[in-house]
Amino acid sequence: MTRGKITYRPARDELAYTFGGRLPVAHVRSGDILEVHTEDCFGGLVRGPGDLPSQVCRMPYLNPVSGPFFVEDAAPGDTLAVHLASVTPARAWGVSSTFPHFGALTSTSRTATLQPPLQERVWVYDIDQEAGLVRFHATDSDHSVDLPLDPMIGTIGVAPGGFEARSTIVADTHGGNLDTPQLRAGTTLYLGVRVHGAMLALGDGHARQGEGEACGVGVEIATVTTLAVEVIKGVPTVWPRLETDREIISIGCARPLEDAYRIAHHDLVAWTSELTGLDTLDAYQLISQAGRAPIGNVCDPDYTVLAAVDKTLLPEPGPAYDGVHGRLRQTVAGPR
Amino acid sequence: MTRGKITYRPARDELAYTFGGRLPVAHVRSGDILEVHTEDCFGGLVRGPGDLPSQVCRMPYLNPVSGPFFVEDAAPGDTLAVHLASVTPARAWGVSSTFPHFGALTSTSRTATLQPPLQERVWVYDIDQEAGLVRFHATDSDHSVDLPLDPMIGTIGVAPGGFEARSTIVADTHGGNLDTPQLRAGTTLYLGVRVHGAMLALGDGHARQGEGEACGVGVEIATVTTLAVEVIKGVPTVWPRLETDREIISIGCARPLEDAYRIAHHDLVAWTSELTGLDTLDAYQLISQAGRAPIGNVCDPDYTVLAAVDKTLLPEPGPAYDGVHGRLRQTVAGPR
Amino acid sequence: MTRGKITYRPARDELAYTFGGRLPVAHVRSGDILEVHTEDCFGGLVRGPGDLPSQVCRMPYLNPVSGPFFVEDAAPGDTLAVHLASVTPARAWGVSSTFPHFGALTSTSRTATLQPPLQERVWVYDIDQEAGLVRFHATDSDHSVDLPLDPMIGTIGVAPGGFEARSTIVADTHGGNLDTPQLRAGTTLYLGVRVHGAMLALGDGHARQGEGEACGVGVEIATVTTLAVEVIKGVPTVWPRLETDREIISIGCARPLEDAYRIAHHDLVAWTSELTGLDTLDAYQLISQAGRAPIGNVCDPDYTVLAAVDKTLLPEPGPAYDGVHGRLRQTVAGPR
Amino acid sequence: MTRGKITYRPARDELAYTFGGRLPVAHVRSGDILEVHTEDCFGGLVRGPGDLPSQVCRMPYLNPVSGPFFVEDAAPGDTLAVHLASVTPARAWGVSSTFPHFGALTSTSRTATLQPPLQERVWVYDIDQEAGLVRFHATDSDHSVDLPLDPMIGTIGVAPGGFEARSTIVADTHGGNLDTPQLRAGTTLYLGVRVHGAMLALGDGHARQGEGEACGVGVEIATVTTLAVEVIKGVPTVWPRLETDREIISIGCARPLEDAYRIAHHDLVAWTSELTGLDTLDAYQLISQAGRAPIGNVCDPDYTVLAAVDKTLLPEPGPAYDGVHGRLRQTVAGPR
Repeated sequence: MTRGKITYRPARDELAYTFGGRLPVAHVRSGDILEVHTEDCFGGLVRGPGDLPSQVCRMPYLNPVSGPFFVEDAAPGDTLAVHLASVTPARAWGVSSTFPHFGALTSTSRTATLQPPLQERVWVYDIDQEAGLVRFHATDSDHSVDLPLDPMIGTIGVAPGGFEARSTIVADTHGGNLDTPQLRAGTTLYLGVRVHGAMLALGDGHARQGEGEACGVGVEIATVTTLAVEVIKGVPTVWPRLETDREIISIGCARPLEDAYRIAHHDLVAWTSELTGLDTLDAYQLISQAGRAPIGNVCDPDYTVLAAVDKTLLPEPGPAYDGVHGRLRQTVAGPR
Repeated sequence: MTRGKITYRPARDELAYTFGGRLPVAHVRSGDILEVHTEDCFGGLVRGPGDLPSQVCRMPYLNPVSGPFFVEDAAPGDTLAVHLASVTPARAWGVSSTFPHFGALTSTSRTATLQPPLQERVWVYDIDQEAGLVRFHATDSDHSVDLPLDPMIGTIGVAPGGFEARSTIVADTHGGNLDTPQLRAGTTLYLGVRVHGAMLALGDGHARQGEGEACGVGVEIATVTTLAVEVIKGVPTVWPRLETDREIISIGCARPLEDAYRIAHHDLVAWTSELTGLDTLDAYQLISQAGRAPIGNVCDPDYTVLAAVDKTLLPEPGPAYDGVHGRLRQTVAGPR
Repeated sequence: MTRGKITYRPARDELAYTFGGRLPVAHVRSGDILEVHTEDCFGGLVRGPGDLPSQVCRMPYLNPVSGPFFVEDAAPGDTLAVHLASVTPARAWGVSSTFPHFGALTSTSRTATLQPPLQERVWVYDIDQEAGLVRFHATDSDHSVDLPLDPMIGTIGVAPGGFEARSTIVADTHGGNLDTPQLRAGTTLYLGVRVHGAMLALGDGHARQGEGEACGVGVEIATVTTLAVEVIKGVPTVWPRLETDREIISIGCARPLEDAYRIAHHDLVAWTSELTGLDTLDAYQLISQAGRAPIGNVCDPDYTVLAAVDKTLLPEPGPAYDGVHGRLRQTVAGPR
Repeated sequence: MTRGKITYRPARDELAYTFGGRLPVAHVRSGDILEVHTEDCFGGLVRGPGDLPSQVCRMPYLNPVSGPFFVEDAAPGDTLAVHLASVTPARAWGVSSTFPHFGALTSTSRTATLQPPLQERVWVYDIDQEAGLVRFHATDSDHSVDLPLDPMIGTIGVAPGGFEARSTIVADTHGGNLDTPQLRAGTTLYLGVRVHGAMLALGDGHARQGEGEACGVGVEIATVTTLAVEVIKGVPTVWPRLETDREIISIGCARPLEDAYRIAHHDLVAWTSELTGLDTLDAYQLISQAGRAPIGNVCDPDYTVLAAVDKTLLPEPGPAYDGVHGRLRQTVAGPR
């Protein structure tokens, strides 16, 4: 397959704030390699302690994504495989913040209480790509500490179908604001195609984040992200799935958090059953003992939980999606 | 400190089904080493595919614990540190099962639906302690696969105080059915003392379990568990906490699952702040980027989520609980 | 104010399945009276026991609304008041059903379990408008019983703003699938305007429904609905609100259900404070003792709870939204 | 049946703080009439604006109940019917308050956030029994308003069984802190008996409360409550149920709130099916259109939702529990 390489760097007014409801910014084909520049969740407007997000940002201009990309030959009922080849911070710094009535340890517009919001505050992190470190500086004392750099894409998805256009803050069957560290280089994401061309878009990079993204905001960065796509014809995918060299992973997006857990595990049980030939209850049993359940976010409109299992803990599994993960991994490793 | 070693092996009619409301079976002192024999969650009555739990077990005689142990000098307002020195499977097999209307991927007595229950089925696992493996056998096909052996205690706690006696199925501030793989050998558990003597009890060993214990049942085993206890006078602990050589961990128990997440992270933020001197929002920020959030169970009356952080990712932390983890670790490693 | 009367009857292919993302079907002005024909949630395709919804309907062509109507002079930051003058069943029958994995007493795509769905079944009700009755017939026995006819609009809303287009199945700040019996004739609905022209649309009539709409489906009817609209300039409204001659009511839409309760009560406390001059905690206290909390739905993607209080139980309340409820009530009662 | 009348007025040190784990204070028999004096939830210690509950009360000495009463011949597997003949305020005033981190519109120990608690404040209400009014006085302004007096018992239950003793703050299958206005004079409560003698206890009267008890506290009163009991042999009851002249009602207790809704409706569907002969899906359908779903509390450890239906909306229902409601109603109306 001849591969093309497409580079896309959005102008400020090209940034998108929904999945769905937008015209494509470029066309790509199975096997193409796509280099996408993404802005951070604040549109790059929060650069120091004085840039309080609620003052410098304006709703709904938050969490911009680059795209959408029209993937040729992708039609409803297909699956789009997106392999993340690299996620590179575009600047030597990242930012995080508290944000009024947003996050897991504060009341919110949904978990509404009569209490005033927490103080809004900005943290600026140093990113040292060579050392693979991101440096936290306390704001109220002199403490600082290095954390491992672990760049990821927070928001990636396709158009949701059903004539809908969803805010990029949201995660659902179409992907979106999944906010899991698993979306790092080396991972393949599977998304069910809902509209012609799939309409892939991505953004919201994090230099790293904790599980659950407790304060509502990761170490937010602009990125240059390289990915390869392939359309898997005639194979539908309901909820977002991931594959790494080691694991297969299903993602559930819902409130309350146990429903996100249920969705992810229901899907992983079905996937395990399909790959191994185990009957449903045997697969349920095996995942119950062998599964991991990393939490993605507990702050966005839909929380995310992952259900993951090592492929080596499955009895004689067949290749997922006909081996596309391995193929795309080779594609991006090949000579460009 | 002179240490004694106490061995306790309950007769069948000595098993306890509540935390609280029971007289002690033995007295122990700070520095004592305690070897406790524990039965499995079925009281050892499920031994093969024909032993359906709903038929061979009778409510409320499920999830028995061994104890309670009266810890001398433990008083309300103190903390009891319990170091797990070893958790050894007592038999060469373990069992798991589905159970009618119990588990994460079925309706339950609380998440009540009009659907009939899933089929009740028993899985018997082989345990190979030397190889460190536990072997899954499918029931509906010939598949089998080895999983790493990772023995843990599912249920451990003290009396709840407030004149309450709580079923051993429940997890709450007093500990109880925490159901997390972190309760393995090498971990120290901190529990706030609510009644005189603390009244420690434990049971419900698992050869291993997945995160969330999706089907509601781990690989259930009887164990011989060795532990060392120490009373930390005048230091209260609200929610259960853990410490390993690498991490400090807070545990939240609640429904919905996000509240378990909130409790655990609220507690870990406070703990981090206390150990490092970071102010609350700085600690919130750091945990948001550096924290892990393993799910314990999503099947028991109260779900459990852990909030964990590497001590090396905290800036200049002081020792937790005055270094008791290290002390107890040495205690159990010393000559007996 | 000169009033016009506008009648709109959609052709089948004019039905809308989202709020937002659609061009208007008509323009209306403050003071206009609008007669809208609405289809039932099945698009009129379920007419007898053999018409199983999952077979005769096709996603996303469910829950159609009539509209949107562009309301002149309505701009973001305004409030649209919509007074329901009459909701009249358009046929002598209504239908209800179970639907696979939809409803409160079944597992769903979110509360995902491994159990098979409940049996899909259709109930046809007789509607006797003169007697004010709707007749239930059992499907598995000869029983039947009359219930009071209480026609209502299940789904009504404006475009959501933020470039979003939301499925008509959803309820949120823009209104939508609110599914509360309070949306009957005599009620005024207040919706915050998010886009120019507000883009009002409605449908999904019920001859009646129970609180929570347990099985997921009311007694579904096509209606002829008459309403009057007025734009309240410069007054924003965050969550949908209702006013009747007797009560003021706030609506919260969220999962889990307690968040819907919180939103509604948070909003009603603020509204009470504003109308009476009580401080926030006094208003909180009064609503805590005087408030009602009817549940709307416990089946849709966002559950709905209402917070209601009798105006006579408020100390010296001023008129809500400058008395628009009384004005519109008179408008529709006046000579046409 | 010869009836006795038993009067019980607890001394302060006789008040109970758990269901279960206590010896009986008196023995009663089916047909007896019992007059019980109950203290308010603060033990009578909050009497004015300066008596902040967190200062004058001490955990766990909150929400005292009077009892337990040993009901002769009540055995596990039976149902205890308790008819509330009268609930009379014992004083001319009631109190309410906010309480730190307790209530629906504040973060709590479970819905843990980093925000400080709301201000703690006390409201004193005047009770005018003749006029049937309870008078609210604002604390921050001169406003006051009369609300209808509607006395009720907030907490009533039996011992929980399974060797458990549960705090009186909790509601569960054994009853407890149900906090619903339906527990007023004229209502019969059905509770499944879990231990010999049932061990009935009650307290926590409210002069009235709103649905959900938003601030966490009703208009708290001491009461003199008269009730009649009858044991229904061999008929088990899983969740608490109510019967009035007009309705049958099931109560669900759980978090999240939708599970309380599910439990209550699951139980009411089963009860409806049993009384009418409708099959399960027909009963589900009928309740979906005819049911009411009043919320009890959204503040206690377990939230409560009721599922209610008018008996006149059921086709040819048989009498519930063999007509005990009518019998007990006559018992208390008869000559004493």
